[in-house]
Amino acid sequence: MVVTVVGLGLIGGSLALDLRANGFANSLIGVDQSAQHCQQALDRNLVDKVLPLEQACWESDIILLAIPVGAIVDVLPQVLTRISKQCVVMDMGSTKEEISRLLKGHSRRGRCVLAHPMAGTEYSGPMAAVKNLFQGNAAIICDKEASDPDALKLAERLFKSLFMHLIYMDAASHDIHAAYVSHISHISSFVLSLTVLEKEKSESTIFNLASGGFASTVRLAKSSPKMWRDVYQQNSSNILDVLDEYIEKITLFRELIASGDFDGTQSLMKEANEIRRILDGEEADLPISSSPTTKQQTLISNR
Amino acid sequence: MVVTVVGLGLIGGSLALDLRANGFANSLIGVDQSAQHCQQALDRNLVDKVLPLEQACWESDIILLAIPVGAIVDVLPQVLTRISKQCVVMDMGSTKEEISRLLKGHSRRGRCVLAHPMAGTEYSGPMAAVKNLFQGNAAIICDKEASDPDALKLAERLFKSLFMHLIYMDAASHDIHAAYVSHISHISSFVLSLTVLEKEKSESTIFNLASGGFASTVRLAKSSPKMWRDVYQQNSSNILDVLDEYIEKITLFRELIASGDFDGTQSLMKEANEIRRILDGEEADLPISSSPTTKQQTLISNR
Repeated sequence: MVVTVVGLGLIGGSLALDLRANGFANSLIGVDQSAQHCQQALDRNLVDKVLPLEQACWESDIILLAIPVGAIVDVLPQVLTRISKQCVVMDMGSTKEEISRLLKGHSRRGRCVLAHPMAGTEYSGPMAAVKNLFQGNAAIICDKEASDPDALKLAERLFKSLFMHLIYMDAASHDIHAAYVSHISHISSFVLSLTVLEKEKSESTIFNLASGGFASTVRLAKSSPKMWRDVYQQNSSNILDVLDEYIEKITLFRELIASGDFDGTQSLMKEANEIRRILDGEEADLPISSSPTTKQQTLISNR
Repeated sequence: MVVTVVGLGLIGGSLALDLRANGFANSLIGVDQSAQHCQQALDRNLVDKVLPLEQACWESDIILLAIPVGAIVDVLPQVLTRISKQCVVMDMGSTKEEISRLLKGHSRRGRCVLAHPMAGTEYSGPMAAVKNLFQGNAAIICDKEASDPDALKLAERLFKSLFMHLIYMDAASHDIHAAYVSHISHISSFVLSLTVLEKEKSESTIFNLASGGFASTVRLAKSSPKMWRDVYQQNSSNILDVLDEYIEKITLFRELIASGDFDGTQSLMKEANEIRRILDGEEADLPISSSPTTKQQTLISNR
């Protein structure tokens, strides 16, 4: 199978690494606007060769678009007009409604599978590509009925080869859920960074006091501004909705502290602890303590 | 050296584990209000025996208070009146100004070292204790001139035996910096959890979409409400100060999205990226990509 990866960054590069290692790809073609990224991808053997987009389209069995969502809406329609009849195109973007709307009624819509593998790190570029980035995570496929059955099957086979589990939803639902769970995390992390940079003028103090807590909460603030700019643009109404909720909650938290109602803050934090049960499968309201599971112990030790 | 650990939780239990392993402690005594915690600490061999506080005071060379800061202000003065002349008492709390004020002029103030080891996880209780929790992190010692030279030296030796690096500041400065870097992280994480629990009613969707980003940003929301309640109470004015800054920044972020100024969000995120340079020692404004260092690659692989 000849696989073309458009966008040789964290996601594209990591896809290339795993799809070569697991045998899904016999041959990998890279496409990237940046000559430096192309060279790095070749140096790291992420791809076998680099081609212009048009030529890559002719030669590919499957084309993976791992570029910012603002670029996907430009590139995907171009790609669809240039591929062979059997070729499948998948996008890997973090928003889906706009691209879904754009493709509606397109004569070659069936060749396209709209996907969102839930994986990433705060780093970007070909040097950030890592093995097993996707393993054990969810891959969302949107509007699956709009894809040709063989195209859908190939996309599913690709994600399964990465040991991802599949989830299906329509594009509009995807964008709502992504805003609620993923996009707001990035904003709260960016804002935490801005706040700490504004208030704490001593860089060495930030470094020294960071320890594990601040470092993990602020981690996403290292993410690519260009990539996230496009996500906010394409998903602004859902993001505003969840942002309003966030601002309401943090204002309530502030009011409780300002009025000296620390029991009130304790109740709120107890509610927040509920996330433990959902993410770790643990009881959140143990009266005295919460113990990590063996798996968490390992994660803690590796931190 | 006979070491008593008061509070057999995450911090106390982890101290016990390392101080036994590195030979600093020949004998470890545990004190805890919870019979269950005492039993778990004995079962895990964190301590050799469990005693009531008063008796432990008589037998100890050094006493470590690893209890919520609201309890420290009650327990520390009691302990000071009960120890032998040579005994040293250290508190491990996350706030320092109130305890510092309380001890001012105390006849035995010199036996006491006010400390804050910057380490932790989101778990609590004796079962959460892990080895090497402190290694490589900063230990803050406050108002060192108020401690007797031999007491200070012993405290320093203890932290160095854990491979921590020492930082000295006055108690008031500690509380400002801790609010700016550590306490706000916890609040933003608690609020993120509350927001997602409110908006996203499907637990399986939260679980599936969580991936690395949400999970790390919301991690601190699993922390102990009782412990953090006390921190907010003792450090409320500094926390309100940084919370106001946070609310101002997130409101600005919201306004930029609402008004369609996505270039504005991109500039803000670029500013936020600066945290990368401080925490990772990397350039934040590389035009195209940011690559993880070898150490970060390892961390990513372990995630």
